[in-house]
Amino acid sequence: MLAKVAMIGGGSWATAIIKMLSNNIKEKEIFWWMRNTDAIEHIKKYHHNPNYLSAAEVKIPETNISDNISEIISAANYIILNVPAAFLKETLKDVEPEDFKGKKIVSAIKGIVPDENQIIGEFLNEKFQVPFEDILVISGPCHAEEVALEKLSYLTIASIDVEAATYFASLLSTRYIKTNVSDDIFGTEYAAVLKNIYAVASGICHGVGYGDNFQAVLISNAIREINRFVNAVHPISRDIKESAYLGDLLVTAYSQFSRNRTFGNMIGKGYTVKSAQLEMNMIAEGYYAASCMHVINKKYKVDMPISRAVYAVLYEKHAPQIEMALLTEQLS
Amino acid sequence: MLAKVAMIGGGSWATAIIKMLSNNIKEKEIFWWMRNTDAIEHIKKYHHNPNYLSAAEVKIPETNISDNISEIISAANYIILNVPAAFLKETLKDVEPEDFKGKKIVSAIKGIVPDENQIIGEFLNEKFQVPFEDILVISGPCHAEEVALEKLSYLTIASIDVEAATYFASLLSTRYIKTNVSDDIFGTEYAAVLKNIYAVASGICHGVGYGDNFQAVLISNAIREINRFVNAVHPISRDIKESAYLGDLLVTAYSQFSRNRTFGNMIGKGYTVKSAQLEMNMIAEGYYAASCMHVINKKYKVDMPISRAVYAVLYEKHAPQIEMALLTEQLS
Repeated sequence: MLAKVAMIGGGSWATAIIKMLSNNIKEKEIFWWMRNTDAIEHIKKYHHNPNYLSAAEVKIPETNISDNISEIISAANYIILNVPAAFLKETLKDVEPEDFKGKKIVSAIKGIVPDENQIIGEFLNEKFQVPFEDILVISGPCHAEEVALEKLSYLTIASIDVEAATYFASLLSTRYIKTNVSDDIFGTEYAAVLKNIYAVASGICHGVGYGDNFQAVLISNAIREINRFVNAVHPISRDIKESAYLGDLLVTAYSQFSRNRTFGNMIGKGYTVKSAQLEMNMIAEGYYAASCMHVINKKYKVDMPISRAVYAVLYEKHAPQIEMALLTEQLS
Repeated sequence: MLAKVAMIGGGSWATAIIKMLSNNIKEKEIFWWMRNTDAIEHIKKYHHNPNYLSAAEVKIPETNISDNISEIISAANYIILNVPAAFLKETLKDVEPEDFKGKKIVSAIKGIVPDENQIIGEFLNEKFQVPFEDILVISGPCHAEEVALEKLSYLTIASIDVEAATYFASLLSTRYIKTNVSDDIFGTEYAAVLKNIYAVASGICHGVGYGDNFQAVLISNAIREINRFVNAVHPISRDIKESAYLGDLLVTAYSQFSRNRTFGNMIGKGYTVKSAQLEMNMIAEGYYAASCMHVINKKYKVDMPISRAVYAVLYEKHAPQIEMALLTEQLS
């Protein structure tokens, strides 16, 4: 069965993945849904996404781009979900479990579904009866901006159905994209969510005045915190030092492109959450993740001092300076 | 037995450790040897090291600072070795095994003794009959520059004699220095040496044009390479994600203060080794480490593609662009 791929979402990461796919499958086999009808018209006319990665050329046929989600989903057998986690329920509100039946659903979302406090895989399984075998996860380390620049990047495609993951990985592999395959959908999703919280922590610490020496300690503690959590939730054999886990954390916590780090930095410098969000005009997924993970971890009770400190600063209005000073006592 | 501590070496890391010690023991119990007699005169007169971390105040009594190494060693019971590894043999040429007898020898050196191809602990044991129980290792992540600025940093003190390590750690702990204790002197030393090679690799890749996405993959592969090597050389139970291993790698590979990364960056941009060294006017330990580790690994035969690539670029004059492209095929 040849792949027909539908992209659900119109942001920079969606645009980057469209760019990768265009190297491997015919443009007519790619379908694209986005909410913004102005953007759709612009792409049809000028073959560039006006708002994100606008340098990347998009040569999908006009008829394959639409704001009708059911139409786009029905046209494809691989459905990539790529909207912010906070908007997923709204995006799928008219989609029925029947619409996903027999298709592979690929999550490119790095977040947790609000209210439900579920990772995307669990949400799809519970609310849309998608079998876990039909769920794939795309993970980095991969900032979309560097894909646009064709800088070499490595992706990990995770699925319990390793054959499907391998096939889908081949659709993304290009001169500048290398791929790994994994069977760890839960660990990969949770690590991708958690790393945003640690990038916020990293930004807060920088904003408060900690230096490079401390950042290194913070991140080495963060990967241990991720390891403890994913081992508690889904105890399989995995090497947390692999690119999909440690690499993804590093690119998010250390990169200039990281929105989460920028957001944290503003908080550390004294901005309120509201004013930092207004100033950035973008969603820092780590903000939502901190709250969701706080709830989820009530069940698992894993020792997560960094996550907890970020939650305290963002949601309990603790002073960043004091909260981070308390945190330093719990790291090693 | 109260500690009397001798510092052997006059660089920035030596000056930073003197600053830490001054918070915990009386200045008259600190002794300082350095080769540069002009610097000695300057410190005696103005209480600042003229060449390194010159902002830090040094209040050691005049009589405790000398270029007579035997005198300085005989005055103390903890001897901190803190010269570049390349100069260690020359520095100790008039020192006899008898001079070290009954003393604790602390290595703050992150390097391998040239020609001998030994880490400092092995060298001290073999050439000076220092029992392994009397050897301590100080490890970061810790750029001296940030100690001068009193930015919070974490040190690890390793020794088979954990009690001695704990005591010595207490001499370094201050408001801005937290300490961990470990019994892994071999792993700690090798990790500290290897990380300089990976910082050079990181610089080369940046210089050649790879972006943040690839850096994250490189470093996540580097920590796996360190893990493989130290497990081959000294297979004890350790968590390579701890600050002394992963943290030390991160601060060196990602920090603006890293000489090794700067050196690698120049190589990646096309400088020759010679011109990069002249331009920097400082020793990048990773340059020597790459050669020593190449020899040492002939014995252990650990799979170390990154180290090997750095060696090929620095010593076999392979083009950085080509060597790094070949390396990318071996990472995941």
